[in-house]
Amino acid sequence: MFIGKVVGTLWSTKKTQNLESLRFLIIHPLNLNKEPLTDIVVAADVLGAGRGEYVMVAYGRAARLAVGDENCSIEAAVTAIIDRIDIDESMTPLQVDALKMMSA
Amino acid sequence: MFIGKVVGTLWSTKKTQNLESLRFLIIHPLNLNKEPLTDIVVAADVLGAGRGEYVMVAYGRAARLAVGDENCSIEAAVTAIIDRIDIDESMTPLQVDALKMMSA
Amino acid sequence: MFIGKVVGTLWSTKKTQNLESLRFLIIHPLNLNKEPLTDIVVAADVLGAGRGEYVMVAYGRAARLAVGDENCSIEAAVTAIIDRIDIDESMTPLQVDALKMMSA
Amino acid sequence: MFIGKVVGTLWSTKKTQNLESLRFLIIHPLNLNKEPLTDIVVAADVLGAGRGEYVMVAYGRAARLAVGDENCSIEAAVTAIIDRIDIDESMTPLQVDALKMMSA
Amino acid sequence: MFIGKVVGTLWSTKKTQNLESLRFLIIHPLNLNKEPLTDIVVAADVLGAGRGEYVMVAYGRAARLAVGDENCSIEAAVTAIIDRIDIDESMTPLQVDALKMMSA
Repeated sequence: MFIGKVVGTLWSTKKTQNLESLRFLIIHPLNLNKEPLTDIVVAADVLGAGRGEYVMVAYGRAARLAVGDENCSIEAAVTAIIDRIDIDESMTPLQVDALKMMSA
Repeated sequence: MFIGKVVGTLWSTKKTQNLESLRFLIIHPLNLNKEPLTDIVVAADVLGAGRGEYVMVAYGRAARLAVGDENCSIEAAVTAIIDRIDIDESMTPLQVDALKMMSA
Repeated sequence: MFIGKVVGTLWSTKKTQNLESLRFLIIHPLNLNKEPLTDIVVAADVLGAGRGEYVMVAYGRAARLAVGDENCSIEAAVTAIIDRIDIDESMTPLQVDALKMMSA
Repeated sequence: MFIGKVVGTLWSTKKTQNLESLRFLIIHPLNLNKEPLTDIVVAADVLGAGRGEYVMVAYGRAARLAVGDENCSIEAAVTAIIDRIDIDESMTPLQVDALKMMSA
Repeated sequence: MFIGKVVGTLWSTKKTQNLESLRFLIIHPLNLNKEPLTDIVVAADVLGAGRGEYVMVAYGRAARLAVGDENCSIEAAVTAIIDRIDIDESMTPLQVDALKMMSA
């Protein structure tokens, strides 16, 4: 699984039938560099995650289990809204800063 | 899932039997940098996505469910044609630009 | 799925039993940069793809379905020999060149 | 599977039901460069791995088997706490150093 | 699947029960650049691959089939010890060199 920030929402009217009732979020994966990440991931969400929240995202069958439908055409879903992360102080200050941003 | 732009079509006469009736699109994944992406993905399509359209693509069993045949030899398929994305203004202007390109 | 060029063949006498009758090709994935790719992929082939040909490769269960044996120990296989790709002229000239190489 | 170092813990109260009793660790994958890695992975843990320990992490169904619940929404789990690794002296000194850090 | 060189062995006493009898190798994936690779992969091995040997590695269910236990917590395994690879002379000399290293 990875940690990401919710940065947007995706809207579609023309989609496969097994996606009708799902909400799709645009997720910005967190990394330990200051540089902005260049990739974004689309994930289904049934937990009601809001913009700016940090979430845990899972891929594959785990994602379909998360939305409660093993036969829907998704392979990424929000599985948790993150409250806090505790991190090891032996990491470099930059890394600690990046992760503390989340814990604030 | 990821967001990509339809940039072409792939033609093949010699292929495995379980791919006979499928249409294959060449997809350019969207990222948040200005640099052109160096990778392309081939995805099956049953939604009729056209050149220049932005689509959501899913991998694995989700792709086979999307085309309605769990026993075909694909692992990537278009699952939605994207109407619009709403994005967080707290992202860097560059990132917002990249994503707004799509919402235009 | 991805597009790659067949650049070689792999030979092995000591392998798991469920791979006995399979042929393995070394595939060079196509990208849109001029730089040579640094990665290669090994894929099983039952279509008889030859050196220099461009092929579509699928991963996972799709690969096992392609070779007609769901219980063999492969996760990549050639699923089509590519005849032609049609590409969007709105891409950068460099990108168009890279893809036209294939359509020639 | 990959080798990673446990660098933190993730806390969440709002998560999918099938994750209730699981503990989630933040893992820093090991590589052979001196540069700090830019990616982190979240993995479920039932072995009681502690901060600073090196672990083996598996993805997909292997992860669900590791935590003893094939229907939970995870796709990464700690499968072993590493005691020692023996490495080939033909690698570059830098590479050997990076791996020996672990064996110390 | 990918080609890699066996560069070490991983030892663990505290691991999930379904891994008890397995041997784990540290694999250095081969690429076509002169630069040392920065990533390593851990793979289960039942073929008895030795240090310095080049092997084919498969991911996912293919790996579990390779070790003969679909319910063990692995997602990477050695599926073949490579005897020789034949490569296309149209590749760049650097690429040919990198691959010939293996064929020697």
